[in-house]
Amino acid sequence: MKFSPLFWPIKFKNNIIYILDETALPKNLTYLKARNYQEACTAIENMKTRAVGQVLLVMYTFLLEFRKNKNKKDIFPVLAKVAKTINAARPTLPFKILTDMVLGWVAKNEPLEENILGFLEMLKNKRIRQAGAASKLIKDKDAILTHCNVSGLMPLIAESCLKDKKHISFFATETRPYLQGARLTAWELKRAGFPVTIIADNMVAQVMSEGKINKVIVGGDHLAQNGDIANKIGTYQIALLAKHFHIPFYVLCPPASKVKSGRDIKIEIRPEEELLEFKGMRIAPAGVEGYYPAFDITPNSLITKHIYLEI
Amino acid sequence: MKFSPLFWPIKFKNNIIYILDETALPKNLTYLKARNYQEACTAIENMKTRAVGQVLLVMYTFLLEFRKNKNKKDIFPVLAKVAKTINAARPTLPFKILTDMVLGWVAKNEPLEENILGFLEMLKNKRIRQAGAASKLIKDKDAILTHCNVSGLMPLIAESCLKDKKHISFFATETRPYLQGARLTAWELKRAGFPVTIIADNMVAQVMSEGKINKVIVGGDHLAQNGDIANKIGTYQIALLAKHFHIPFYVLCPPASKVKSGRDIKIEIRPEEELLEFKGMRIAPAGVEGYYPAFDITPNSLITKHIYLEI
Repeated sequence: MKFSPLFWPIKFKNNIIYILDETALPKNLTYLKARNYQEACTAIENMKTRAVGQVLLVMYTFLLEFRKNKNKKDIFPVLAKVAKTINAARPTLPFKILTDMVLGWVAKNEPLEENILGFLEMLKNKRIRQAGAASKLIKDKDAILTHCNVSGLMPLIAESCLKDKKHISFFATETRPYLQGARLTAWELKRAGFPVTIIADNMVAQVMSEGKINKVIVGGDHLAQNGDIANKIGTYQIALLAKHFHIPFYVLCPPASKVKSGRDIKIEIRPEEELLEFKGMRIAPAGVEGYYPAFDITPNSLITKHIYLEI
Repeated sequence: MKFSPLFWPIKFKNNIIYILDETALPKNLTYLKARNYQEACTAIENMKTRAVGQVLLVMYTFLLEFRKNKNKKDIFPVLAKVAKTINAARPTLPFKILTDMVLGWVAKNEPLEENILGFLEMLKNKRIRQAGAASKLIKDKDAILTHCNVSGLMPLIAESCLKDKKHISFFATETRPYLQGARLTAWELKRAGFPVTIIADNMVAQVMSEGKINKVIVGGDHLAQNGDIANKIGTYQIALLAKHFHIPFYVLCPPASKVKSGRDIKIEIRPEEELLEFKGMRIAPAGVEGYYPAFDITPNSLITKHIYLEI
């Protein structure tokens, strides 16, 4: 099985974390180094990595800080400080699930290194099974619309379909302002040999109305107890349009957080410059304001089926 | 009354047509020259001008070719050739209404120069009245979402509101891939002193769900007999979302063409490079396909009210 570099975008060697710089793709496939939790959190804040990359980065960061600290008896307050910084990095993302889990292991004196590495190994296998489960929902010749990037799962889903002799194709929204759809999803699908067509975010209704799309599959960044999902801005309106055109809408879900409903998830508002500039070039007139909510909430009622991580 | 440069983006002096280069805005306010109908049509094909600019350019092109031709007796076949080239420039746009009108004048030996200049003067006054009519639908403190660019009408609407002591603000979708919303609408509104906030095309549902938008007002490039409207790609999905959120959706309409229904309007598919490149810089991986329908059809049933040009 071949994996997209986005499937496991964080590496850990000799107490250095290597972070695939997703902002440099598709032009350059390069890794940034993080040698401490501050550098790791800066990479998260600057969106150098996202989605599953953030989960891996959080876990490797704990591993790094644990290894660096020689006095294992006093490790709890050290890692609690790390946890606090991680939790504050991006408000919409449920980092607390991970940081609480790790601090729980430390509090109970469980073997931290083994637990972290075991968790990551399990995560890898669960994600492969999740892609397999998604592929079962797809028919031969289906055209799948996806938004943003689901970290290597789309090529895995397509590969899994191919094993069942189902040939599928993709539409990727470009996903402004960071263009993860155009830069990452299209890149990894093309690289894996699957047909993919980029559309602008404003073309979804038109392409759906032309009958070109059979299914929508997106990821989810934060699943609430009631099935609502926070995901990359733009997901919500695609779900509303899918409903209108009677197109099934599937979400590849992380484990649910303790948050009851999507209404309780805080939406991160990012700096307007990220919207008003493109690769450092200003695209809007001086003095004009921008508004950039980085996520939106898709209510459970619009989701045809959740494809959960745990099987 | 102050006008946006986009309200009347074509000038005509000494048998030269000056075309406001809308692709260079907001950085540069420059005019291209056209000395014959071929240059005028190239400017239309390359989207140097659009919307009402195209109407003005068509009329001035006939004026130019009429003046250049000394043998007024043989003018009909000359202008018929001009009409044919114009009609073929962009398939979705109803240039035939204009070219048929002009050829009709020529066939009936009406004074062409006076007719063209009279038509343009009437158009100007009608557009001012259209903006006034739109302003009557708006309440104090309304926030208006608009898409693409309606050639100077939004600042006029805001000004007309201000006269009635109504203070309004705007959200402009950036309108990928040409960014007319970010580059033109935000620019002309800011220039005229009205508050405007840019959002990406994928943020519409989120911003509507936050209760930040009271009305949607867009233009229309081609009105069919049944009230369906062809407009810049993205209009249709905004109309669907407005319906979902119970937000009134208004269209500033041109005169209806002879086409019965939106289904009969041909959608122009533009080169994928225009989507996959940004200012000459490739944003998508090599070999990946793009799909760029330049317009979509908003059905009459989603339109709360048409604001017609004729009053």
